[in-house]
Amino acid sequence: MSKPYVLGVDIGGTNTVFGIVDARGQVIASDSIKTRKHTNFDDYVEELHAGVQRLLEKNDAEDKIQGIGIGAPNANYYTGEILNPPNLPWGPIIPLAEKVSRAFGGIPVAVTNDANAAALGEMTYGAARGMKDFIMITLGTGVGSGIVVNGQLVYGHDGFAGELGHLIVKRNNGRMCGCGRTGCLEAYCSATGVARTAREFLEVRTEPSTLRNLQIEDITSKDVYDAAVAGDKLAKEIFNYTGTILGEAFADMVSFTSPQAIILFGGLAKSGELLMKPLQDAFDKSVMPVFKGKTKILLSELKESDAAVLGASALGWEARNRFDNAVAEVSGADPEKIK
Amino acid sequence: MSKPYVLGVDIGGTNTVFGIVDARGQVIASDSIKTRKHTNFDDYVEELHAGVQRLLEKNDAEDKIQGIGIGAPNANYYTGEILNPPNLPWGPIIPLAEKVSRAFGGIPVAVTNDANAAALGEMTYGAARGMKDFIMITLGTGVGSGIVVNGQLVYGHDGFAGELGHLIVKRNNGRMCGCGRTGCLEAYCSATGVARTAREFLEVRTEPSTLRNLQIEDITSKDVYDAAVAGDKLAKEIFNYTGTILGEAFADMVSFTSPQAIILFGGLAKSGELLMKPLQDAFDKSVMPVFKGKTKILLSELKESDAAVLGASALGWEARNRFDNAVAEVSGADPEKIK
Repeated sequence: MSKPYVLGVDIGGTNTVFGIVDARGQVIASDSIKTRKHTNFDDYVEELHAGVQRLLEKNDAEDKIQGIGIGAPNANYYTGEILNPPNLPWGPIIPLAEKVSRAFGGIPVAVTNDANAAALGEMTYGAARGMKDFIMITLGTGVGSGIVVNGQLVYGHDGFAGELGHLIVKRNNGRMCGCGRTGCLEAYCSATGVARTAREFLEVRTEPSTLRNLQIEDITSKDVYDAAVAGDKLAKEIFNYTGTILGEAFADMVSFTSPQAIILFGGLAKSGELLMKPLQDAFDKSVMPVFKGKTKILLSELKESDAAVLGASALGWEARNRFDNAVAEVSGADPEKIK
Repeated sequence: MSKPYVLGVDIGGTNTVFGIVDARGQVIASDSIKTRKHTNFDDYVEELHAGVQRLLEKNDAEDKIQGIGIGAPNANYYTGEILNPPNLPWGPIIPLAEKVSRAFGGIPVAVTNDANAAALGEMTYGAARGMKDFIMITLGTGVGSGIVVNGQLVYGHDGFAGELGHLIVKRNNGRMCGCGRTGCLEAYCSATGVARTAREFLEVRTEPSTLRNLQIEDITSKDVYDAAVAGDKLAKEIFNYTGTILGEAFADMVSFTSPQAIILFGGLAKSGELLMKPLQDAFDKSVMPVFKGKTKILLSELKESDAAVLGASALGWEARNRFDNAVAEVSGADPEKIK
C-alpha cells in the first residue's frame, strides 16, 4: 500500500519550516529550524533530518512518508539544485534534492522555487482546485510567480520559467531591480517596491501625509498600509499606483496563457480593497477585448502559516511518482505493483 | 491499419489552400480555392469538399485520410469554431470543425488559429523538431504567436491563449491597435507596423531618404526593405527601431516560459540581418541574466508555400487521436484496436 503522508519543506532566508501533510492537505504536525545556523550544507541537512525525525516519531509517522517536496528560492525542478541563492550561505550550487534524499535513506525528493510551490499548493489544496490554467503571483519582498498550463507547472526548458516579477513594466527610466536590469514589475509591486514608491512620492510631492512623521528611509509597506487605512490620502495614492501597475501587467499575462484566474498570495496581497480596487480597475481597462471578463483575480485560500509547507508538500506526491516511473523504466515493472 | 495521410487546410483572407500530407511532412499534392467567393458558409464548405475530392481522386488518396487539420484566423481549438473573424464573410460564429467533418463523412477535424498551426508545423516538421518549449512568432500583416510548453500548444482555459502580438510595448502614447487598445507589439513590429514607422519617421524627421520619392500613404514594409538594402539610412533605422522593440519584447517572453528557442516566420522575418541584428542585440541586452545565452532566435525551416498547409496538417494527426479517445471513452474499447 502506498504511504499516507508527504513531507513539505520550505527553506526561507531565516527559517526552514517542515511539516507532515496528508492527502487531504491537513498539516498533521510541523516544526522549524534556523536556516542560516550552519555555513556547511551537510550540517544543515543533518539538523533538518534530526528535526524531521523527531517530528515523525512524535506523530507515529516513521515509514509513512511517500516523498519529500521542498520549496526554496532559486531551486530548480530539473536538476534538484539551488543555483546562486541570494540569501543562503552554502555556495553557488547546492545539490539539494540529492543530499536530502540521501539523508532520508532514499526517499524521493522533488524541489522547486517557492512561488512554483505556492502554485502547486493552491492547485492541490486551495483556490485553484480544479483549475488547469492559472497564474500564481506572490507579493512579498519580491514578486514571484508560478504558471500552470494545462494542469502542469511551466518549468521551461531550463527549469527557470515563470519570472513574471521581472516583466518590464517601465521601459525608460525604470527603477533598478535586484536582477541587474531596470523597470521590472518587482521593483514597483513588491513590499519593497511599495516602500520605494512611498519614498519617491514623499520626496517629489508636497502634500501633507502622516508618513512624513516617519524616518523616510525606514518606511515599510506596512507603514503605508496603516497610513492608508487611517485615511492618509498620499498613502492611498501609493496603493493606487501599485495596483494600477499590477493590473496592467496582469493584462499582459492574460494575453500569454489566458488563465482562468490569477491568484495572489503574500503579505501585500492582504491589503484588501486598497490594492484590489485599483488593480481590478486597471486590469479591466487594460485586458484585451477577447479576454474581457474571463479571468478572475483571486486571493489565496491557504492559511499563510501553512501555505509554504503545503505548497512544498504538494510536490512530494509528484516526487513519489517520478521515482516510481524511474524504477519501472529500469526494472520493466509496473509502477503500481512496486508500491 | 491506420491511414497514411492527413489533410491540411489553411483558410486565409484571400485563398484557402489545402494539401495532402504524409507522416514525414511531404506535401503530396495541394490546391486552393478562393475564400470569399461564397457569402454562405455551407456553399464554401461544399466547394472546399469538391476541390479536396478532386485532389484525392487525382492522387489515389480517397479513404487514406486520417484526419483534417485547419488553420484559420480566430479559430478555437476547444469549440471548433471561428469567432468574430475580421476578414471572413460568414458571420460572427462559424461552426468550422462540425460542418467540415460532416461534409467529409465524419472524418475528424481539428482547428486552431494560423499562428498555432505554424507552431505545430514547426514542431512536427521544421526548426522546432525535438523541442518541448518554444515560441513561434509570425510576422505578417499582424504579429501572431503559438506557444509550446512541455511539448503541448498553450490554448489557455478558453482556447485563445498566445496573443503575444498584443503584449503592450508602449504604455503611454502608444499607437492604436486593431484590437481596440494602444501600444501593442503588433502596432510596431508587423509589416503594417513597419510601414507606420516609416510614415512617422518621414513626417517627423528631415533627413533625405529615397522613401520620400514614394507616396507616403502607400509605403509598404517591402518598400522600406528595398530602400534599406539599397543603403538608405533612414530605412535602416526603421528596421533598427522595429528589431529593437521586438528584441525587448522577446526578453519578456523568455521570463514567461523560458523557451529553448523563439522561431520567426512570415514575410518580415525574411529581412535578414536588417531585422535580426538589432533584434538579437536588443534581446541580448534585455534578457534577464538567469536566461542569458540560453534562448536561440531562429528562422522557420518550412518552405513558405508549404508552411501553412503543413502547420494545419500537423493538427490532423491530433484530430485522429482525439476522435479515437472519444470513441474509446464511449465504447470502453481500446483506441488501438478500433483503427
